[in-house]
Amino acid sequence: MLKAVFFDIDDTLYDTSGFAKLARKAALNMMIDAGLPLDSTEAYKLLREIIAQKGSNYDKHFNVLTKTVFGEEKPLLIALGMINYHNVKFALLRPFPRTTSTLINLKSKGYRLGVISNGITIKQWEKLIRLGIHHFFDEVVTSDEIGFEKPHHRIFEVALSRMGCTPEKSIMIGNKFSEDMMGAVNAGMSAILVNCKLTPEEEEYIEKEKLDVKVISDISELNEIL
Amino acid sequence: MLKAVFFDIDDTLYDTSGFAKLARKAALNMMIDAGLPLDSTEAYKLLREIIAQKGSNYDKHFNVLTKTVFGEEKPLLIALGMINYHNVKFALLRPFPRTTSTLINLKSKGYRLGVISNGITIKQWEKLIRLGIHHFFDEVVTSDEIGFEKPHHRIFEVALSRMGCTPEKSIMIGNKFSEDMMGAVNAGMSAILVNCKLTPEEEEYIEKEKLDVKVISDISELNEIL
Repeated sequence: MLKAVFFDIDDTLYDTSGFAKLARKAALNMMIDAGLPLDSTEAYKLLREIIAQKGSNYDKHFNVLTKTVFGEEKPLLIALGMINYHNVKFALLRPFPRTTSTLINLKSKGYRLGVISNGITIKQWEKLIRLGIHHFFDEVVTSDEIGFEKPHHRIFEVALSRMGCTPEKSIMIGNKFSEDMMGAVNAGMSAILVNCKLTPEEEEYIEKEKLDVKVISDISELNEIL
Repeated sequence: MLKAVFFDIDDTLYDTSGFAKLARKAALNMMIDAGLPLDSTEAYKLLREIIAQKGSNYDKHFNVLTKTVFGEEKPLLIALGMINYHNVKFALLRPFPRTTSTLINLKSKGYRLGVISNGITIKQWEKLIRLGIHHFFDEVVTSDEIGFEKPHHRIFEVALSRMGCTPEKSIMIGNKFSEDMMGAVNAGMSAILVNCKLTPEEEEYIEKEKLDVKVISDISELNEIL
C-alpha cells in the first residue's frame, strides 16, 4: 500500500507554459503601447530568444529586451512589462481542471502529499499558495535547496527521508519523462506521467526495462489508480 | 514664470508609510496563522527592527524574520508574507486625495512634470504605474541612477538638465525638509513642503536665510500657488 504521493508543480499541477505565454504577450503589448518599436510577433520572438538564453528563472528578461532594442535599459518600459506580466499571470493562475478535487480525494484516502521540483523553494511555495493548494502538501523539496536537480537520485532521497517513507511505498507524478519518471524509478519509486505523451523510444524502453511507469491523460485518473 | 514642477514620490504623491504598515501587518497575520510563534504586536516590533537594520529597500525582510525566530529560513512562511504584503499593498495603492486632479490641472496650465526620488528607478516607475499617474511625468530621476541621493545637488542638476529647465523656472514638491527643501534651494530652485510640518528651528532657518520655501497642508493648494 502506497503512503506518499509526490508531485512536480510546473505543467503538472497547473498550466505554467500556457499562462506564461499569455502573460508575456500581455506584457509586451503594454510595452509596445508605451513605445517599444516592435510589433507583437517580433517582440515575442525576441523575448523567447532572451528567455532561452538566460533561463526562465532569470528575473531581468525585460531589462535585456529594452537594452537589446534601444542600446540601454528603459525603466518605464521594464516596469510596465513586469507589472503586466505579474498581473495577468496572477489573475489567470489556477490549477489544471480536476486537480484540487483529486488532491482532496488523495488526502481523504490517507496519502501524504509532497512536491519534488526543479526550482527555487520560496518561488515554488509561492506558486502553491497562489494556486490555493499549499495546505495539501507536507513537504516541498526543490533543487535549489538540495543542490541537485531531478532526475538526480539525491533530491528524491531527501524527499522520501523528510516524508519518512520508503521508495516502495511512494509514487511520483510529473510531466517530464527524463526528470520525473526516470528520476523516480532510479530512486526505487513508481511513477505516473501526466500531460505528456511518451515517444516510441520511451515506450520501448519502459517495456524492455519493465519500469513501473504509467501514463494518464488527466490528473483525475489518479482517483482510480491510487 | 515656472516651467517645471518636480515631485518626490513616497509620502508626497501617496501614503507610502500608511500602506506599508497595513500591508506588513496583514502579511504577519498570515504568517502567524501558518505557524509563526509570535503575537501580532511582537511580530510587528521584530519586523520593524529588521527594516530599521536592513533598510526599507532590502527585499528579504521576511527571510531574516523567520531566521531570527526559528534559527533557519522558513520558505512557506516567507512566501506567505511576501504574497500577502504585495497583495494588500497593491490593492490599497492610490494617490493621496486630490493628487490626480492637481496633476491634471498643472498639465493643463502647461507645466512639465518630473520626479526626483531617492530610490530604485524601475521600482519608482512601478509605483507611478500602479498609482495610475505615470503618464503625467516626463522624467523620473533617481538616486539609484545618478549615484547621489537628495539633498545632493547633482541629482537636482541632472533632473533640470534632462527637463531642459533652469533652476529659477523650476520648483520641487516634497515631504522632507532636509532632502527635498534644502536639496532644491541649494540647487537654486524654489520648494514647497507638503504632508509635513516644519520644526521651529527649520522655520527660523528659512526666515533667517530667506529661503524660497513654502508649506502647504494639501497637494491641491498647488492649484492656487502655481
